[in-house]
Amino acid sequence: MKKKLQAIVLLSGGIDSATTLAIAKTMGFDVYALSFRYGQRHAVELKSARRIAKMNRVIRHLILDIDLQKIGGSALTADINVPKRKSTVPLRKNIPITYVPARNTIFLSYALAWAEVVGADDIFIGVNVLDYSGYPDCRPEYIAAYQKMAGLATKAGVEGKQKLKIHAPLIKMSKAQIIRRGIQLGVNYSLTHSCYDPSESGEACGECDSCRLRLKGFKDAGLEDPVKYKKKACR
Amino acid sequence: MKKKLQAIVLLSGGIDSATTLAIAKTMGFDVYALSFRYGQRHAVELKSARRIAKMNRVIRHLILDIDLQKIGGSALTADINVPKRKSTVPLRKNIPITYVPARNTIFLSYALAWAEVVGADDIFIGVNVLDYSGYPDCRPEYIAAYQKMAGLATKAGVEGKQKLKIHAPLIKMSKAQIIRRGIQLGVNYSLTHSCYDPSESGEACGECDSCRLRLKGFKDAGLEDPVKYKKKACR
Repeated sequence: MKKKLQAIVLLSGGIDSATTLAIAKTMGFDVYALSFRYGQRHAVELKSARRIAKMNRVIRHLILDIDLQKIGGSALTADINVPKRKSTVPLRKNIPITYVPARNTIFLSYALAWAEVVGADDIFIGVNVLDYSGYPDCRPEYIAAYQKMAGLATKAGVEGKQKLKIHAPLIKMSKAQIIRRGIQLGVNYSLTHSCYDPSESGEACGECDSCRLRLKGFKDAGLEDPVKYKKKACR
Repeated sequence: MKKKLQAIVLLSGGIDSATTLAIAKTMGFDVYALSFRYGQRHAVELKSARRIAKMNRVIRHLILDIDLQKIGGSALTADINVPKRKSTVPLRKNIPITYVPARNTIFLSYALAWAEVVGADDIFIGVNVLDYSGYPDCRPEYIAAYQKMAGLATKAGVEGKQKLKIHAPLIKMSKAQIIRRGIQLGVNYSLTHSCYDPSESGEACGECDSCRLRLKGFKDAGLEDPVKYKKKACR
């Protein structure tokens, strides 16, 4: 009997990772979902990650505690305000202050470790270069270089059995395209969380870059965002 | 005034990382030392790391808590016995059970994040391919691939300013050569710890692969190992 394909999927609890998980399942993978409690302001996203993992009947959902706050350098983990803007202000072109240094490199490295332990050859990450053009670790050349390094980093790499592949199925899609693809695959976006600076009850602010990208994505897709927002102004 | 060179040095508290730190200092770098509490059996090595960092007057010594135990897959972090052998048995040629999946990839990824935050272009890691030929992530081709990936992973990489270099100065040295170099540079090896399975009081077992490599290194260098061992048999 052919062994069922297994993959590690990085699952933050947002639109991109929920869609990526649905794509991995559609491709026939049994999924190990991996999330991180890394000192993010928006740790409420882990609640979303748990619900998404459960709905998708993953083999296992691992939430690792990692300490990026001690390293600092980002508005998402350090004591720096998350920028808010009215929707009339264009989305930033430069690398934003919410960029977390080397975050995807760290996340992928844990995924690589887990892949080696469970014997998976495939890792999925929901990065995309269009909406997050400012993030260095969301670019195709970065993903390709990571895959090459990862192919040398493990036992299988030494033994010449390495077939490790980093899948970034959303990398060239716009947020609207991602949402439309997810809807086709039956993703329930009311379970997802995107806001960088939610209220204590978990409501999205509607004004951080992440909320604005999300809202624009739903609008461009001609759909209504099913999550709750604190304010309804300026949208 | 020329800005002083700064580097991140991965510091486990063993012979290799202590020597690597001394080499970085000799090259003129001001050092940020980075250690990990990763669920290792031999967490006593962190005491050594602290003493070595202090003696070398590093700018800062950061010990991060990371959770490799949840991922498992190694005798160093999971509930698997560390293999012990008499010194008459040759050291293993295959990848040993003490190999921790993707450990160096994870460690280097945190170093990369910290390097980006403090503005360092240099990362030092004390891997070596001769004594640890079984570890995939100790090979020169792995280090080269990591450096290439790291050069694309950060803000500086996007802005074309990336000069990031992964230094592995011990990579082709034998343990005896490392010890001799360290002695030249004034490394105090009585502060270091190598044993994978120390007693509660921190004494080395003398029989795990790490102890045996260390003892052989001192013997080949014609020197006496200054640390204490639980047993004196078979050496």
